[in-house]
Amino acid sequence: MDETERLLEVIRGRGAKTVGLQFPVGLRPRAVELAGELEKRAGVTCMIAADPSFGACDVPEMPVDLIVHLAHAPMPHLRYRNVFFYDLPTPLPESWAFLDAALSRLPKRVGILTTTQHRQWVPQITERLQAKGFEPVVSEPDRRVAYAAQVLGCDYFAATNIAADVDGFLYVGTGDFHPLGVAIIVKDKPVVIADPSTGEARTLDEVKDRVLRQRWGAIVRAQDARTFGIILSKKVGQDRSDLAARLKALLEAKGREGRLFYMDLVAPELLDGYGVDAWVSTACPRIAIEDYLRYKQPMLTPQELEIVLGERTWDAYAFDEIRA
Amino acid sequence: MDETERLLEVIRGRGAKTVGLQFPVGLRPRAVELAGELEKRAGVTCMIAADPSFGACDVPEMPVDLIVHLAHAPMPHLRYRNVFFYDLPTPLPESWAFLDAALSRLPKRVGILTTTQHRQWVPQITERLQAKGFEPVVSEPDRRVAYAAQVLGCDYFAATNIAADVDGFLYVGTGDFHPLGVAIIVKDKPVVIADPSTGEARTLDEVKDRVLRQRWGAIVRAQDARTFGIILSKKVGQDRSDLAARLKALLEAKGREGRLFYMDLVAPELLDGYGVDAWVSTACPRIAIEDYLRYKQPMLTPQELEIVLGERTWDAYAFDEIRA
Repeated sequence: MDETERLLEVIRGRGAKTVGLQFPVGLRPRAVELAGELEKRAGVTCMIAADPSFGACDVPEMPVDLIVHLAHAPMPHLRYRNVFFYDLPTPLPESWAFLDAALSRLPKRVGILTTTQHRQWVPQITERLQAKGFEPVVSEPDRRVAYAAQVLGCDYFAATNIAADVDGFLYVGTGDFHPLGVAIIVKDKPVVIADPSTGEARTLDEVKDRVLRQRWGAIVRAQDARTFGIILSKKVGQDRSDLAARLKALLEAKGREGRLFYMDLVAPELLDGYGVDAWVSTACPRIAIEDYLRYKQPMLTPQELEIVLGERTWDAYAFDEIRA
Repeated sequence: MDETERLLEVIRGRGAKTVGLQFPVGLRPRAVELAGELEKRAGVTCMIAADPSFGACDVPEMPVDLIVHLAHAPMPHLRYRNVFFYDLPTPLPESWAFLDAALSRLPKRVGILTTTQHRQWVPQITERLQAKGFEPVVSEPDRRVAYAAQVLGCDYFAATNIAADVDGFLYVGTGDFHPLGVAIIVKDKPVVIADPSTGEARTLDEVKDRVLRQRWGAIVRAQDARTFGIILSKKVGQDRSDLAARLKALLEAKGREGRLFYMDLVAPELLDGYGVDAWVSTACPRIAIEDYLRYKQPMLTPQELEIVLGERTWDAYAFDEIRA
């Protein structure tokens, strides 16, 4: 059944009069379109959430009867109230050239990883690899990740869970962040990206080296910092207040100052002018890794702060994950 | 009693263990300092709210025992839960030169206006003007404005309430926005600014003309817009959902489309890419007036939308206020 039809049935079933729409930045025009369609066909009033949503970790309350959250998979460990997850999977590709381009780089025992929008391709990918003589392995989902093979920017269970059973990974998707996380977490195993948007395959060796150099740079720059700002997210699935409290206590035990900063959206202009020497983010791990250059002061992950404070060695560097 | 001592007493009295701090952008370093002082002296854990606060209209909940809100006066009509308003008035000036510089431009019957940070100067200002032969008039506070003579960017009761009794206004403060609002609202009466930061007095005639030309430009640009985005604020003191619903119905009655956008912080990058032709803000009036040039599409006030739709004439142009 078409997803909009399924949604209309839910709206009717619940007698919803007002509907809120939440969605990632790339779907802004689609959200406006859907609002128009729902108002016309279901007689509801729609309210478009203009605060950006970065995932199913980020489903703020709205003054409506039903929230429609587009394109993210619900996190099994979170309780959502009156939320309809509107699934927007990418249709099966017409050409599997992007997958075939990856074959020559894959080990025989290969772990399959992807994001929610491509998750429906996994059976065909597995079949295709098996037909070529590979032994693909797919992880079960878990408490934070809804679907088999699915990775999140903050959760690589689908990789670590099967790391002992494979000699490398195939990541199907666009963008570098997720496979980069995999490559850093499963240090000694190759990660090959098969990118359906370009039709090509690639590895991340150079990106990984550059990012790790940047992380080392951030750690060195924070070495003499006296006051650290510890960022604590308002977003329901990014709440790590216990970790933030532990980092504050650790900083104080080491003779530094830790100040807690509570916020929703994390952005450079919102952290300007506080007179803080360095930041540690307990919110989404992408903030430190991906947006590093946008911040004036070094922006660390919790594990990187431990390195600064001599509680962890660089050899034990770990990519930041939010695990339930 | 020193404001921090008063706060420490409240913290002790309530047995608060966690304290949240909210403050305008200009007070960021002061907030970090106060957090350190409270943690040291009261043994509490402080949490600095890094989402910017623009006024007492904007006091979001925090997971703490007590919220400390700096430098804004509480709005009498709002109910605040566990909020301590930390008063930060500007001390009486050493020189009254800025006031004396205004005298030659003031009418005899003059209304006194200011913001909360200078409200304690009002008795001395009144006295000084009386000694020089003026007849100063000060408005009582009301449901949205806590103090006599106080204006807000969204509430000019202190001016309109006494407009019939005066021939012009003296505004004591820095910045153009508040006196601009006064000048547009009380069309035919001069507004003189006595600015303690520069020590000088000035009028706003040029600024007012430029802003009104800009507003006219925005109205003209929105004339052919088909889809309007109606901005509805999450902030407790900026909620005008009834007005937003009325504007949506008005747009639809006029054959246009109105889409509701629900958001906290309003910023250009958050409104980009929706395919909307024009915006109407029911949030803080400053967004349309002060930040106009930052938005790609015309950004209107509710009254300006009425002009676009032929429901109001330009001669009946009204500055946007949020009245309880």
